[in-house]
Formats: sequence, structure tokens, C-alpha cells
Amino acid sequence: MKKIYTLIIAAIMPAAISLAQESASTNITGKEYPKINPDRTVIFKVDAPKAQSVSVDLEGRHAMSRNSQGQWEVTTPPITPGFHYYSLIVDGVKVSDPASRQFFGSGSMMSGIEIPEVCVDYYLDMDVPHGEVRMQRYWSELTGSWRVCNVYVPAGYDSNPETRYPVLYLLHGAGEDETGWPNQGLMYNIMDNLIYEGSAVPMIVVMDHGVAKIPGIASSNMFDFTAYEKLVIEELIPMIDSKYRTLADRQHRGICGLSLGGFQSFTIAMNNRDKFSWLGGFSGSGKGPGTTADLYDSSMNDDFNLIFISTGKMESPQMYATVKNFHDILDGAGVRHVFYQSAGTGHEWLTWRRSLYRLVPMLFK
Amino acid sequence: MKKIYTLIIAAIMPAAISLAQESASTNITGKEYPKINPDRTVIFKVDAPKAQSVSVDLEGRHAMSRNSQGQWEVTTPPITPGFHYYSLIVDGVKVSDPASRQFFGSGSMMSGIEIPEVCVDYYLDMDVPHGEVRMQRYWSELTGSWRVCNVYVPAGYDSNPETRYPVLYLLHGAGEDETGWPNQGLMYNIMDNLIYEGSAVPMIVVMDHGVAKIPGIASSNMFDFTAYEKLVIEELIPMIDSKYRTLADRQHRGICGLSLGGFQSFTIAMNNRDKFSWLGGFSGSGKGPGTTADLYDSSMNDDFNLIFISTGKMESPQMYATVKNFHDILDGAGVRHVFYQSAGTGHEWLTWRRSLYRLVPMLFK
Repeated sequence: MKKIYTLIIAAIMPAAISLAQESASTNITGKEYPKINPDRTVIFKVDAPKAQSVSVDLEGRHAMSRNSQGQWEVTTPPITPGFHYYSLIVDGVKVSDPASRQFFGSGSMMSGIEIPEVCVDYYLDMDVPHGEVRMQRYWSELTGSWRVCNVYVPAGYDSNPETRYPVLYLLHGAGEDETGWPNQGLMYNIMDNLIYEGSAVPMIVVMDHGVAKIPGIASSNMFDFTAYEKLVIEELIPMIDSKYRTLADRQHRGICGLSLGGFQSFTIAMNNRDKFSWLGGFSGSGKGPGTTADLYDSSMNDDFNLIFISTGKMESPQMYATVKNFHDILDGAGVRHVFYQSAGTGHEWLTWRRSLYRLVPMLFK
Repeated sequence: MKKIYTLIIAAIMPAAISLAQESASTNITGKEYPKINPDRTVIFKVDAPKAQSVSVDLEGRHAMSRNSQGQWEVTTPPITPGFHYYSLIVDGVKVSDPASRQFFGSGSMMSGIEIPEVCVDYYLDMDVPHGEVRMQRYWSELTGSWRVCNVYVPAGYDSNPETRYPVLYLLHGAGEDETGWPNQGLMYNIMDNLIYEGSAVPMIVVMDHGVAKIPGIASSNMFDFTAYEKLVIEELIPMIDSKYRTLADRQHRGICGLSLGGFQSFTIAMNNRDKFSWLGGFSGSGKGPGTTADLYDSSMNDDFNLIFISTGKMESPQMYATVKNFHDILDGAGVRHVFYQSAGTGHEWLTWRRSLYRLVPMLFK
């Protein structure tokens, strides 16, 4: 009997790879659809009895048809793993799916769907000690307004009151806000898992809203970060260093971000080398998309402990070229850096989760 | 038109995720089967006209039936991504599949199959500068025989004749040999890709055959590594340091291995702290599976720059417990270490590829 028993165990093990359809984890409680098949095709069902046409915009547009129950229904092609924004298009109008939780992206609330990734759990909620994401309100004299940032503190922050921590400033993309990295990026799981594993140093992560309007220095150019840079240096960093137990020097302070937040990170860090020594940009790096080589030289090797740039391999040719050109510029200037490329993903959250996962173990060491 | 053009681009992008059946990349040239479906089920077809029963042993045993062409055929359940050994069982006899390339494992030549992993390419052959795997023969006075090891040298080794490199000794598992890491592990792709990316320091990787029979010190206990340790210290390291441009000191020398090779790595490194300062064990770590806490203390923090242990989360309970217990022992002794756990994988090569991919960026920094 022993041998047969062994075989049964072996046969059971791959069952970790689900064979079942699953309601998306991003659905609101109790909503069955959208539902994801094991081959990553997605079934949508929508009640819209009076609509003339309904489609889903998720990695391309998929026209729905009425099924026998009178619902609009479609099964998409296989969707890339990870998180995606999506929309319904009802009689030509782009709307949110009431079945989905809502995520702030593209400058508005968007539906979102999480497509499971086989044999990957670093961004999932695991049975490890959990840090916290704290909503931190602060008064800004420069903008004359209360602002809000999210601050991740690692597990044990409260129970080790003598311990001080390095700080990573982690910026979102255009049209997103301080909720992007926690809600879409699941950054708290990535941090918890890497810290538990021993791969990452326990650290504080600050996710601010990367937009600031300061009277007198507002600009119509989206790549002019003068106002936000001033706010980070004069108000955000001092606030964080006074409210949290930080190691408040450049050796223990890093900044990185995705897309527009990557351009912001490079601009702010390179203009303030006395403040930052760790630097990263995901799907956006350098001082802007049309950056020129003369801005970069080997002094960056002395000033930065790490320069990390990344891109999805499936980004649009223009997006990809922006990062690849910057990689070539750094190579040409003899600037040491990591150039991580995410396989099979575009300008999307799986690229940025992976980038964070690659970067964080290299920080503050 | 611009908007429609954008949508077409978006619709094309996910095509990177193949919808087609593919012959396994591990098949010998020209063999169509085994063939892998997009959902990771695998179709086997075997010609065995006189056999009474044929089955496939791949993550469990799958009985084949005769199809209308008289071939034996079966479609398996979804198989875990990565490399797997497999066998055919013809009338009760375990045999290799003549359609498959052969890999040395379980002490014999085995069929093997590579199941593609969606949106992952770090172990695939990419368009980056390639290092070389050199078959290095060497005479062993201790064993009185010629031995062979495989030595990976990074891209640029020959064209930078003044450069010296750190060395990682990378050991295989029980029943495997020096071909395991290149053939099953695709370690040369992992190294090429990490070095190109800038995440890993260029290094030499030595893959020896981890078995040595020395007259007078042979042992019947598979966890007694006395003979092989003697060979590594007295013959292998001096040979490598004389034939290759190494940085020949403990700060630039690491050792790690999988399964039995993990136990070997810990035993050899801990007995020879003057030789190694970087240490890892994948699905096998500590001085043996029944290791005791008294062998480990915080002096390891001084002697090793990094201690890395890992396991697949889907390993058998006994295998998993071995590594988990060692993790607890190190924690109890206050020994800093990384404990990486591979999601969804067992005692298999994807666990070990991932472990190498996690470990290598941390080495020699």
C-alpha cells in the first residue's frame, strides 16, 4: 500500500494550481462576475436591459452579446496576470463596472481586476508578520492646504520603540494618487513578505500624493516638478522625520516611483543629492521622457549607492524607448545602474510590483 | 483614427501570451509530442503497438489509452511550470521517452519536460551577451582519477584579461551530476541575464561532480561529506584558482547547492570558514537533515556575509520541515539569514532556478 499512497500524494500536490473558475478577488463582496478561468480568460456578465451595445475594455475591447438570460456576456482572450484597470462601454459611454471595487487611476475611479499568477505569491497576503499602512494627514504651508500621504511602517514598529528605520519615498504615476501603491500595487504585502524572508531591511515607505499647487510656481508643463520638489524637500521629509523614527540622513533615504513618478524621483534626487542616495524609476526614469545625455555623468556613481531603472518588455514602443534610451545614456556616461525588464508585461501594475520586488532587497545595504 | 489605432495596439500586446499548443522545448529535434496546451496540460502520444499498458509518470501517474491511430495517448492535468523529470511506464517497466532529450537525474538518464511559465524569461535565452560553460577536466591525486567540472565564465572573460572575478561553487543534488545546473537549471541563462541587467556582479561559477571516493575515507552514510570536502579544499579550489582569473580569498568565494548539495555546502563552508564567506542551501541546508541546534551560533554572523536558505512551499512535509526547522534553529541562535520560499513548487528545478535568481544578486556586494 505504501507505494500507492505515495502516488496519491504526488497526484494531489499540483492541485495547488487551481482548475476552477474563480470570481475575481477585486470584485465587491458577493459579486460572482467577472469570473476568471484557469486559462486566464475572463467571463463578464452585465445587467443592462435597455442598452443597445455593451463592451468591456480590458487589454483591448471585447463586444458583449445578450445571453439566454438577457444579460450581456463575453469571454475575453487570456489576460496578462496581475492587476488591470478596466471599463465597461455602454452605448458608447465608458463607465465603471458596479461589480468591481474602484481604484483611482487615469484621473478617475476605475474598475480593476486581479488576474492570478501561477506559482507566485510575493504580493499576496501571506501568514507573516504584517506592517501597517497609516493615513498621515499633514498641513502644508506652501500649498495652504491639508494633504494626505500613506506611510507603511514594518511589523514591530510599535513594539521596538528604540529602533530607527531607513525611509523609501515611493511615488505613483500620472492620474493616480497615494492610494495606488497600496490598493493596486499591494506594496504592503511585498514589503511584509520580503522583510519576513530576510531579503529586505525593515524600512518605512512613504507614499505621498505627487501633485502640489504652490501659488507663484504652478506650471502647465507636466514634467516641471518644481512645486512638488519644493514640497518634498521643505515639508514632506521634515514632517516624516519628525513624526516617525527615521534614520534621517541621505545614506538611509531613497526615492523611486512609477511612470511620471519615476521622472519625479530622478529629478528630485538629482537636484538634492544631499538628501537621497538610493534612486529608482519604473517605466519612467531620468529627468523626463526627452532627457539629454549632458545631464548625467559619473559623479552619479559617487552620489548614489544604487540607481535602478526598469520597464515592461511589452510597453508601447515609445514608452519602452524612453527607458531604453535612458539606459543607453547612463551606459554612455559610465553610470552604474540596474536595468530590470519585466517579461510579458506592459505599462501596468505587474511591471511595477515586480520592479519594487527586485529593488527593495538592494536598498539600504 | 488615432484612438482606434491605440486600441489595436492594446489588443495586440497580450498576444505575447501564446494561445497555441507547442511542442515541448525539451523534445529532441523534430518530435511533435509531448505537446503543451496553453492551460499547461500536456498531450503525450507514444508508439508501442505490442504493449498491454502504458502510462506517463509526471506529477503523478497518468494512464494512456489507444487512440484511433493505434498510438497510446493521454492529456495530463495542468503541470507546474518549469522543468520536470518524467518517465513512461510500459507494461510495468519505467523507461525513458525516446521523444525527449535526456537529463541525468535520480542516478540515471531521465526524460525531461519544460513547461513554459507565463510572463517569465529570466532563465530563457535572451538577446544579451553570453558567458560560456567550459568543461574543465582535472586530475585528482586523492581519488586517483580524472574528474570533470563545468565552469561558467561571464561574458567578457576573455576580452578583459586583467579582470579577476569572485567564484561561486554551485552544487547539484543527489543522483545528479555536474550537468544538472546547466542542463536542467539553465544557470547560464540566469547568470547572463542577471549580469546584463546589472543586478549581479560578474562571477565565475564552478559546478563540480559532488561525489568523491577517496581510499580510506569512503563512508556508507550519504550525509558524511568528509571525502568530498577534502577534495574541494585540497584539489578543486586550488585548481580553479590556478586555471581561472579568480579573486582567491574568502571574501570573494561562495558555495551553495540544492538538496544534498545544500547540506554539502553548509558542511564544507562551516568547516572551512577561512575559505568561504557566502553560503546557501536550496531545499537542503544545515549540516544534514537531522541537524541539531548546538552546531550553530552567532559566530556565523561574523564569518558569513550572507546565509541563504530556501525551499519550495509544495515540498513534501518532511522535506519542507527540514528547511523550516533549520530556519527556526538559525533564528533561535540569532543567526541572520534569508529564508526564501518558492510559491507553488516542490522539490524541483523551478524552486532551484528561483533560489539561484534570488541569491545571486546578493553575492559579493
